[in-house]
Amino acid sequence: MSRASARPGAGSVGVVRTQHVDLPDPLRLDSGATLAPVRIAYETYGTLAPRRDNAVLVCHALSGDAHAAGWSDDPSAPTTVDGAGAGVRGRGGLGWWDGMIGPGKAFDTDRYFVICTNLIGSCRGSTGPGSIDPGGIVPIAATAALGTQGVAWNAIARSAIMADPDWQDGAYAGTGRAPRAGIKVARMLGHMTYLSEQAVRDRFGRDFQDGAGPVYDLSKADFAIESYLRYQADSFADRFDANAYLYISRALTYFDLARSYGDGSLARALAPVEAATLLLSFSSDWLYPPRDSEDIARALRANGKDVQHVVIDADYGHDSFLLEEARMTEHITAFLDRVAERVA
Amino acid sequence: MSRASARPGAGSVGVVRTQHVDLPDPLRLDSGATLAPVRIAYETYGTLAPRRDNAVLVCHALSGDAHAAGWSDDPSAPTTVDGAGAGVRGRGGLGWWDGMIGPGKAFDTDRYFVICTNLIGSCRGSTGPGSIDPGGIVPIAATAALGTQGVAWNAIARSAIMADPDWQDGAYAGTGRAPRAGIKVARMLGHMTYLSEQAVRDRFGRDFQDGAGPVYDLSKADFAIESYLRYQADSFADRFDANAYLYISRALTYFDLARSYGDGSLARALAPVEAATLLLSFSSDWLYPPRDSEDIARALRANGKDVQHVVIDADYGHDSFLLEEARMTEHITAFLDRVAERVA
Repeated sequence: MSRASARPGAGSVGVVRTQHVDLPDPLRLDSGATLAPVRIAYETYGTLAPRRDNAVLVCHALSGDAHAAGWSDDPSAPTTVDGAGAGVRGRGGLGWWDGMIGPGKAFDTDRYFVICTNLIGSCRGSTGPGSIDPGGIVPIAATAALGTQGVAWNAIARSAIMADPDWQDGAYAGTGRAPRAGIKVARMLGHMTYLSEQAVRDRFGRDFQDGAGPVYDLSKADFAIESYLRYQADSFADRFDANAYLYISRALTYFDLARSYGDGSLARALAPVEAATLLLSFSSDWLYPPRDSEDIARALRANGKDVQHVVIDADYGHDSFLLEEARMTEHITAFLDRVAERVA
Repeated sequence: MSRASARPGAGSVGVVRTQHVDLPDPLRLDSGATLAPVRIAYETYGTLAPRRDNAVLVCHALSGDAHAAGWSDDPSAPTTVDGAGAGVRGRGGLGWWDGMIGPGKAFDTDRYFVICTNLIGSCRGSTGPGSIDPGGIVPIAATAALGTQGVAWNAIARSAIMADPDWQDGAYAGTGRAPRAGIKVARMLGHMTYLSEQAVRDRFGRDFQDGAGPVYDLSKADFAIESYLRYQADSFADRFDANAYLYISRALTYFDLARSYGDGSLARALAPVEAATLLLSFSSDWLYPPRDSEDIARALRANGKDVQHVVIDADYGHDSFLLEEARMTEHITAFLDRVAERVA
């Protein structure tokens, strides 16, 4: 998918090294279990101000990692770009949101100290955010609780992995076999949910991979969309661990702000929020639809909070968060300016 | 899913036996290959008029069969109902479209001789329509060519089956093993595409299967939607053959009226149509969306044909064709009356 470019004249954060921190205390999980020790992979861009008031925490999507901007200093680092840009944006170890983070970009590293932490449970590090006093919140294409379709897609993707005999009830490490076939099906399915109907129609239509037409062979990818999905699936199976996928998928399915923090009321759950909030959503995102962001906005408004929800008219579905850089930059820059003024 | 009932006072066609016919000549396929011998399973309801002008051919969906109405005379006949009604409508061997076919129903067996043939390639018989001089055409939730998303979902479903080691490159017959795990994933995925976002949200939401909340066990179905999909998957794996699924799925993906019969022009492909056409589609059907039916209507109109397209405002997605009986009946009855007048 092509993408709208960020600001003209914006620069790069250069070469970056992923760092790690070990949490000093055990982490208590929703299930009641305790996790320890916990290591978190992270990267930082820009400089922390003496007053320590210019930090921006960037969280990534399901299969992303801490390497959000610049070029990795590790030439062997796999491509970890999530979604439609995979195989293009990750070339040469470029971060998954490089168009949004850097000098003069939406998250301007000449002004802000940007931190990107890797999800806990991910195969590339782990994280527990627990931020205090945030410098403003920008949930992009997010939700307070995944919808029924999303719950189902995730459940089916997990079924595909767990149905693979090479999964071996999860104990595949060290056996020389891993559930590649299963995670490939999971990735293909997931990938389709990140893209809008219009995006796949415009880009692939019913084009045949072989211009001459169908090859009438079940094992072959006849249509261009099939070939694209197989490529994405192979690349994902190379770089992502199946158990990590299972646990992250399960965790994001469980996530329910209203249930966990508000006895079923989203307004109650969000009552303690003190930060200003900018919600960005994309018109064609059917996995995390604008409606879900509007639910959050409504709950914040009910609490009299400072909240703004912008629905960006974009065709790429959920993956618009990787592609619609110019339009996100416009809103994020204005929001961060306003937050900075308030803090000053 | 609940359904809107058909006409009050409508009756049943009673107990029905599936019949078979062997085609006298080999069948030439699109791929150039020839298929012989070809057997077709079918059922008929009502009586053929002396002038043989009251026949209605009913075609079924991917996993349906010839048993469309009444009660099967075979007590061991599996449930073959496609889509959301499975496990309810098939109880006791009731046909998959019993609400639409029978005395006083949309396809009124007091007036019409209704034939339902089983798809060629299906595990429950085979068919080649080739109808001449049709008694009017009613494509319901149909398309002249499946869209990109549909092509992709089908490809992923097939991948899940072919990734199952028990598929054994298709040669699983007689080995005592069949790709159950694979076809279950395929069915869950397919099932989600037959239902609208609103239908699954209204019926399942984020309800937990165990009212107390998540059980934190990867192998368990936490959410009601997961449990529902697993039930559907198990039931489907019991009754449907994986290779049949692969070939039907592939064939419906290839199907492209414009490409095969009009050198890329749908209008040219439909130029020979002499029958009047009533297209029915459902507002929430995202797999075979109203737009696809409108494409057919537009192409027929461009040829000056007698065509009507009714978009039924229905919440159940593609499976509305099994559920919205009352609203379909209204339009089909009026259309068949008009066609009968024209023929008379």
